[in-house]
Amino acid sequence: MPTMAEPVYASLDLGGTNLKGLVATAEGKMLAEGSEPTRSHEGPERVLERMADLLISLGEEAAVDLAAVGVGCPGLIDQGSGTTRFLPNLATHWRDVPVAERLGTALGTPVYLLNDVRMATLGELTFGHGRTASSIVFLALGTGIGGGVAIDGKLRLGPLGMAGELGHMILLPDGPGCGCGSWGCLETLASGPAITAEGVRLLLSGQAPELYRLTSGDAGRITPELMAQAARSGDGSVRDALVRAASFLGLAVANLVVTLHPEVIVLGGGVAGIGDLLFDTVRATLTERVRMFPTADVRLEPSQLGDRAGILGGIALARMGGIGSQR
Amino acid sequence: MPTMAEPVYASLDLGGTNLKGLVATAEGKMLAEGSEPTRSHEGPERVLERMADLLISLGEEAAVDLAAVGVGCPGLIDQGSGTTRFLPNLATHWRDVPVAERLGTALGTPVYLLNDVRMATLGELTFGHGRTASSIVFLALGTGIGGGVAIDGKLRLGPLGMAGELGHMILLPDGPGCGCGSWGCLETLASGPAITAEGVRLLLSGQAPELYRLTSGDAGRITPELMAQAARSGDGSVRDALVRAASFLGLAVANLVVTLHPEVIVLGGGVAGIGDLLFDTVRATLTERVRMFPTADVRLEPSQLGDRAGILGGIALARMGGIGSQR
Repeated sequence: MPTMAEPVYASLDLGGTNLKGLVATAEGKMLAEGSEPTRSHEGPERVLERMADLLISLGEEAAVDLAAVGVGCPGLIDQGSGTTRFLPNLATHWRDVPVAERLGTALGTPVYLLNDVRMATLGELTFGHGRTASSIVFLALGTGIGGGVAIDGKLRLGPLGMAGELGHMILLPDGPGCGCGSWGCLETLASGPAITAEGVRLLLSGQAPELYRLTSGDAGRITPELMAQAARSGDGSVRDALVRAASFLGLAVANLVVTLHPEVIVLGGGVAGIGDLLFDTVRATLTERVRMFPTADVRLEPSQLGDRAGILGGIALARMGGIGSQR
Repeated sequence: MPTMAEPVYASLDLGGTNLKGLVATAEGKMLAEGSEPTRSHEGPERVLERMADLLISLGEEAAVDLAAVGVGCPGLIDQGSGTTRFLPNLATHWRDVPVAERLGTALGTPVYLLNDVRMATLGELTFGHGRTASSIVFLALGTGIGGGVAIDGKLRLGPLGMAGELGHMILLPDGPGCGCGSWGCLETLASGPAITAEGVRLLLSGQAPELYRLTSGDAGRITPELMAQAARSGDGSVRDALVRAASFLGLAVANLVVTLHPEVIVLGGGVAGIGDLLFDTVRATLTERVRMFPTADVRLEPSQLGDRAGILGGIALARMGGIGSQR
């Protein structure tokens, strides 16, 4: 139990499916943790109430007063005012919802907002790889591909908190259409859905017997991780599909390395569960495609915090008193 | 004439063709300027002598003692030791030449090295657009494409000074071979030679009557700037070629914007002489391809220092006492 003098912070991750809350010390020591379904179809008002209730109950569970709260939001926000601008995966899209103000009033404590993947990058920077590295690029490889960039131990956000939208680097100028409205983005080539879709094609066209066996022929059960298992069991076509996706990720990494030459590139999210085949292919692509200078010193690492990167980033955000707009 | 107490600095740009020297105050006020042919085929020893002689004569011309010297080198250097590692465009490639030590001994003053395009970025940051912006991306569009990145008013160099090698961002995974050993790099798509080569093709295949007229049919006289003139005079095919190259540059800019969301992107070098058609196409591509957030606030600008960006960057470098290796 912390002493009276030691401030305690809370963090909340506003996800499309669940709200996740954490109460922790400044050093990230967990005091209470919990989650609730988001139910965004009920509208922002009800979700805001649920967010406040979750944090209040976690504070009570930890028997502490909260000094500040950090909230991660899946989309575009105004960091200065703590207002959401556009959260594409939530019902009604949360245009201009004054989350910091509303939640701050309900809790009686300052509330700071940040894009969720930038918050995860901040978590990794503060409590993960950032303990031994000061320049970090974070790639969250999931349903979408999010990212974050930290230089000199500081998160790069830019004026809108959108620096680090690495899933929307364009790698195939005439590539597949992306949910963002552009095309050929990394996200269309190496996200979970992009990889899974190729698994479905191989399964349905009879080219992936091991994947068929692992899923009992049910295309709905295919995941990148299961595809990696099928590849290890001998499905050459599935292996090729994973290598192709990982090669595109390697191109993105190569472009980030020539741009920033970071110490560590963190590959997080479910797609990183592909494991060695992904990491080895990204490394090989980086070595093959960056020829201007040696890149062996750039570390490719899984997240040290896993699923907790975001929520621990919220503790760091609260502790910092938020991050304003950057020029 | 500066007072005795005011330190005066020198800068030297070591180019493949010419050495350019400058003596200036800390504020960049020019006191003396000059150049000499590099004649790298005579070997590093003779070039180092010529570098020292140029700086000594400029110091004498300005009647000042030099407090420190900044030297821009076209390639890979070890900033910490001030040693060149690989300068591809100079005879013998200058492997492991201790330039800072040798020049420092000859001049009796500290000498600091930096990659030439990073030095130009530092010039722009210190004496150009950086006076009103703190996050800047610099693209030097010439025979090659070099670059530099500054965040929070600080040049990002990385451990080898190679962060900012933006000409080697890969934009066409199966694109043309690049001098760096990779392929599909921006440099293969939008550099002076890439653009000029397409001009040659159009001229020789009879598709560019205005370009033919402007060059009297001499393919050796084609430049991107002349191609822009031909496009304005009605050569639609030449216009298309310029738009295609500028669109690739726009893709690179789009990728830099989603990664860093800088305030200013400076398009410098001879290719920027294409003018409005280049800037307008880059802007249109940025708007079309970055859909995650508004990008109208990102300024696309010509260099404020033009040819002098590098040499003024050397003054800034000398004033800073060099920039060590960055993590």
